[in-house]
Amino acid sequence: MARIAVVGGDGIGTEVTAQARKVIDAVLPGVVYNEYDLGARLYNRTGEVLPQSVEDELAGHDAILLGAIGDPSVPPGVLERGLLLKLRFDFDQYVNLRPSKLWPGTSSPLAGVKPGEIDLVVVREGTEGLYVGAGGVLHKNTPAEIATEESLNTRHGVERVIRDAFARAQRRDRRHVTLVHKTNVLTHAGNLWSRAFAAVASEYPEVTTEYQHVDAASMFLVTNPQRYDVVVTDNLFGDILTDIAAAVTGGIGMAASGSVNPERIYPSTFEPVHGSAPDIAGKGIADPAAAILSAALLLEHLGKLDEARRVTEAVAAEVASRTPGAPLRTAEVGDRVAAAV
Amino acid sequence: MARIAVVGGDGIGTEVTAQARKVIDAVLPGVVYNEYDLGARLYNRTGEVLPQSVEDELAGHDAILLGAIGDPSVPPGVLERGLLLKLRFDFDQYVNLRPSKLWPGTSSPLAGVKPGEIDLVVVREGTEGLYVGAGGVLHKNTPAEIATEESLNTRHGVERVIRDAFARAQRRDRRHVTLVHKTNVLTHAGNLWSRAFAAVASEYPEVTTEYQHVDAASMFLVTNPQRYDVVVTDNLFGDILTDIAAAVTGGIGMAASGSVNPERIYPSTFEPVHGSAPDIAGKGIADPAAAILSAALLLEHLGKLDEARRVTEAVAAEVASRTPGAPLRTAEVGDRVAAAV
Ligand SMILES: CC(C)[C@H](C(=O)O)[C@@H](O)C(=O)O
Ligand SMILES: CC(C)[C@H](C(=O)O)[C@@H](O)C(=O)O
Repeated sequence: MARIAVVGGDGIGTEVTAQARKVIDAVLPGVVYNEYDLGARLYNRTGEVLPQSVEDELAGHDAILLGAIGDPSVPPGVLERGLLLKLRFDFDQYVNLRPSKLWPGTSSPLAGVKPGEIDLVVVREGTEGLYVGAGGVLHKNTPAEIATEESLNTRHGVERVIRDAFARAQRRDRRHVTLVHKTNVLTHAGNLWSRAFAAVASEYPEVTTEYQHVDAASMFLVTNPQRYDVVVTDNLFGDILTDIAAAVTGGIGMAASGSVNPERIYPSTFEPVHGSAPDIAGKGIADPAAAILSAALLLEHLGKLDEARRVTEAVAAEVASRTPGAPLRTAEVGDRVAAAV
Repeated sequence: MARIAVVGGDGIGTEVTAQARKVIDAVLPGVVYNEYDLGARLYNRTGEVLPQSVEDELAGHDAILLGAIGDPSVPPGVLERGLLLKLRFDFDQYVNLRPSKLWPGTSSPLAGVKPGEIDLVVVREGTEGLYVGAGGVLHKNTPAEIATEESLNTRHGVERVIRDAFARAQRRDRRHVTLVHKTNVLTHAGNLWSRAFAAVASEYPEVTTEYQHVDAASMFLVTNPQRYDVVVTDNLFGDILTDIAAAVTGGIGMAASGSVNPERIYPSTFEPVHGSAPDIAGKGIADPAAAILSAALLLEHLGKLDEARRVTEAVAAEVASRTPGAPLRTAEVGDRVAAAV
């Protein structure tokens, strides 16, 4: 039986993961859950973000269901780096998966774009690039100060995430992969990405390909997001592009994500893209849709493809059935989706 | 009398700079122009992008009016790095200025956003960060290959561009500056930017400030671009954010830019954000609005504030007077704006 670690986290995080758990239970009874109290509370009490013993326990699970991390009481970056990024690196979660779909019942800020028209997935590299923490500072607090950040890219790391993107594209209708980078400026890393992309592409003759600079892609995601199917890109570009993709598909209300170790040597983390929203925490009014869609990605990762599909469809139907402007109750959304799967 | 070097460049570049020149002549008679034939033609003929003797001549001008560079016959990156970026670095053009305004007569892809509502300027650092070309590759074409890119940030470089942003904000109605970075991941550079920002902000008590991570800012530029006044950011983030800002203000048709050396020790370059558009080159149908607006930025930089304002207003009026769908003639747009200033 699958073992899932639940890290509700801060703010609305615990409220939305509770609904995701409810839905998993409805579609796949018998899952074993272990709850871990990580986030601002633990940090403020103990000064620790992720004790080694807890990380060791997490490693023994099939997947991690995460709510949201972050609270105004904690300096920015501490929990993100100490928990989210640490898990991505320590658990080799090199495929950061972010689907963006314009669902019926949601509306895009873009004029004239209709539900169904946008359906893309960004495959973002998760363990390299500018996220590795390489860099430093010299002559701090003097006029001579310099600070550096280094982007590290390996053929190993680049090729494996590109291969994952092509494998996904192969299973999709349009079978198209767009590589996004900035090869005209970041020539060294860009060249490595381009060559690895060409090499993997030659293994997938049925998949069509395209290259775009990150600035052009950022513009096209606004002017013509319909054109994208699978987008593969580096860690930092992926961070930016996925937020634009979320914005044009109605904001982060429906944005799910997975930080995936495809080989399942380590557990993968699934979480909504939204934050802990301290302002509405505890009121039972947070929308759990993105958390439940993240649970669907989790099920897919565990090989439960039919269950994943049923959850995704139930969320889509629930969202489409909402009366615009009507108040939303977190638990009722979870109940309705759980009943429908 | 002002001396302006004109680099029309490739494709529609020469067509649109001709109109910009026409408008400058109408508003400020007596300017001395020198035309330089740089771009794909020179490169294909000689293998050179910017001969040292030409760069020395350019240095003797008050400003450079540039059209567009780039042609399918030249490998990507060669002209960009050899000309555009080289001028930014060699002429210390550390303020990369990109205003975005939703003009009457243009329409945003964003539903319900009306002309006048978006009016922001991105002050992008132009001489540091990931654009410095620091990096390399090891074990190329082997499975052990690694490629690096390094972002270099100096207190000197960061502080001077932030100071420029505050000075601009001080002269604007809303007097608001947003710093965009990724301090939670790029901790070394982010910390330098944050401290420099706080230090300069303390010199401008009338200017309100805000910080956003680049992913959040990319989203808000789509969901709520109205909120921004002046945005200051690093070289790469600025490249991305300005294309999003251009997209939400109706694409690159009206996007002007300046690569500015504020001290005027070196000439500054002014150019439309759009490319050389080889597909419509030579037909006389390219829209010169962005090039003429770039000329207005040039005039402003030379201290001709009244002339700059008149050119900007004339372009705005011309664009507002267009019949949607009617064919556009490059020279006629230039004539109408020149007549109106
Ligand atoms: C919280 C932050 C470190 C993280 C990132 O930059 O990856 C977040 O923005 C995300 O996209 O998951
Ligand atoms: C052409 C390219 C090198 C350049 C940049 O990245 O700065 C362009 O995108 C721009 O924004 O001016």
